[in-house]
Amino acid sequence: MNEYFDTDMLLDRRVSWLADGGPDDDIAISTRIRLARNVSGIPFPTHIDNHELAAVIAFAEMAVEKTECLNDPMCFNIAGMEPIDKQILLERRLVSYEFSASPPVMKTLIVNRDEDVSLMVNEEDHLRLQTIHSGFCLSDAWSVIDKVDDALSSEIPYAFDSDLGYLTSCPTNVGTGIRASVMLHLPGLVLSDQVRPVIQGVNKLGMAVRGIFGEGSDNLGNLCQISNQSTLGESEDGIIQRLQLVVSQIINHEKNARRKLLRERTEFLRDSVGRAYGILNNAYVMNSKEALNSLSMLRLGVDMKLIKSIDIKTVNELFILAQPAHLQKYAGKVLDQEERDVARASLIRERLKQ
Amino acid sequence: MNEYFDTDMLLDRRVSWLADGGPDDDIAISTRIRLARNVSGIPFPTHIDNHELAAVIAFAEMAVEKTECLNDPMCFNIAGMEPIDKQILLERRLVSYEFSASPPVMKTLIVNRDEDVSLMVNEEDHLRLQTIHSGFCLSDAWSVIDKVDDALSSEIPYAFDSDLGYLTSCPTNVGTGIRASVMLHLPGLVLSDQVRPVIQGVNKLGMAVRGIFGEGSDNLGNLCQISNQSTLGESEDGIIQRLQLVVSQIINHEKNARRKLLRERTEFLRDSVGRAYGILNNAYVMNSKEALNSLSMLRLGVDMKLIKSIDIKTVNELFILAQPAHLQKYAGKVLDQEERDVARASLIRERLKQ
Repeated sequence: MNEYFDTDMLLDRRVSWLADGGPDDDIAISTRIRLARNVSGIPFPTHIDNHELAAVIAFAEMAVEKTECLNDPMCFNIAGMEPIDKQILLERRLVSYEFSASPPVMKTLIVNRDEDVSLMVNEEDHLRLQTIHSGFCLSDAWSVIDKVDDALSSEIPYAFDSDLGYLTSCPTNVGTGIRASVMLHLPGLVLSDQVRPVIQGVNKLGMAVRGIFGEGSDNLGNLCQISNQSTLGESEDGIIQRLQLVVSQIINHEKNARRKLLRERTEFLRDSVGRAYGILNNAYVMNSKEALNSLSMLRLGVDMKLIKSIDIKTVNELFILAQPAHLQKYAGKVLDQEERDVARASLIRERLKQ
Repeated sequence: MNEYFDTDMLLDRRVSWLADGGPDDDIAISTRIRLARNVSGIPFPTHIDNHELAAVIAFAEMAVEKTECLNDPMCFNIAGMEPIDKQILLERRLVSYEFSASPPVMKTLIVNRDEDVSLMVNEEDHLRLQTIHSGFCLSDAWSVIDKVDDALSSEIPYAFDSDLGYLTSCPTNVGTGIRASVMLHLPGLVLSDQVRPVIQGVNKLGMAVRGIFGEGSDNLGNLCQISNQSTLGESEDGIIQRLQLVVSQIINHEKNARRKLLRERTEFLRDSVGRAYGILNNAYVMNSKEALNSLSMLRLGVDMKLIKSIDIKTVNELFILAQPAHLQKYAGKVLDQEERDVARASLIRERLKQ
């Protein structure tokens, strides 16, 4: 695996995990599980030199090659990449923000051809295994990543303590090293002003919430991510089952909110969806916040069959493709913010017309 | 002319003066001239009893009938009308606000079949003759109303003083009794932030400005009305020529502003127009202010050929038909504000689809 790939080859391909549908995909955008693993006998990446970083990369690449645990893998040399290329990987959700933003020490990313399993090498931990799927499918995601983990462990001696479990760079990941998360789209709860109590309930159940009104953020596209907080003292199955339960409840709340809106506030709902549809189809300048929020309303309209001329895959992909790095890659040049806003509006108009 | 008409019969007809086009109709919505006249020997309407009011009405109806100065006239008994019917007449610009709103004393309105010449009887003056035309055509409008005035004067002894001219209830109308006005659509000047200096210039030339930023009002639909201030000491021709000159200059300013926007701020212009188009076609709830402003942007788009699927008559008519009384008449019932906002959005969507 000496050949490194260029992000350009990603751009002409549909984001396959988004095109997939999946259970409850009207509300759950995606399910993601990542595992934090380290190589026994080598210090954590934050404390090692280039030789050791290179050794970890060699270990990982060899293990992937030998076990064939990633189908037709692509390998990206993160350290040698332009910022915009790293951002492409981030926008496609193949790497973490930290992995793409931190100084250019030796890091690689190995991704399977469908872009649904990836392996970050030399992130905060030596290895971060990740799988991402469309819809709400924690157990499928778990079985995928568990197999990859088993395969790699046959070649890589993991840092493991029989009392604590997997050892990780940050204590919050010690134990199972698992972070399972579901990205939910909750416009029904937001429009009917019910999102706060629901999110507060989730927090009380020991789950972390990012986005919507969780963790000090603006509402961007009515999206939020629910994930487990603790990794220690509970089995992977236990963690996943608990998350499964919590997310199922939120999905039910959202379904009820949507039904109620359709029944009791039909015109308001149709208006919110219709305006977003009208603007996305006809604007010539659009910043990313407006794009996210309008795409959110459009997705709601498609999910609720208020808009039938557009399929959900197109909307899902636009969430990814209307981001800054993708826009610039498609344009083939650096764009300032104003130019991006024009390019974004243009891309959205064209994709929606198809 | 004993038969009185119902406003319902107006509703199924296109507003013919709007459907007409006319010179500079991309910027000038309409040209209107009204003349204030009174019957000699009868006190002004504010100071007379019912017998005298009835006498004025009889005078006017007889004169119209005898001289045939209004083609196929319709007569409306204002005093006996429901408020909503009076509002219909106001929304169609057949009567003044004062005429429709003041207490139900004996008043009639006589209108020709094309709705472009009307005669208010017992407004502030005994007679208010009005003609309204599409586009910018002061001299045509003048020749129409002048003929009607001549005809009526052959049957009605006007209150006239050889020094002062026509005598009127309010001193500001004494002399010629003429008020000529042009309704202009100036989105180009507004979008490029040039409207204030232009309007200030107009004021300095002794013209009155209503709307846009003239006479303490919100900007509604980028519309403003320019009219003569004085009626005394100048001939009708002089007044009209002066107004002609001023309006021509404003039209040139607006044309330049539009050209400059198209050349220098293409995306901004397309965006403003496109958003309005998208919202008008897809909203389900719309208040009248948003409707006016969006229709204004749509009209700009049609005028500048950025939008080719919609004709200007449809847009012009929507300015009239999306008003509260028309919406309620079409619905066949009283609608509260929320219901009107839904009906308005629905009417606009349907008309634009046609």
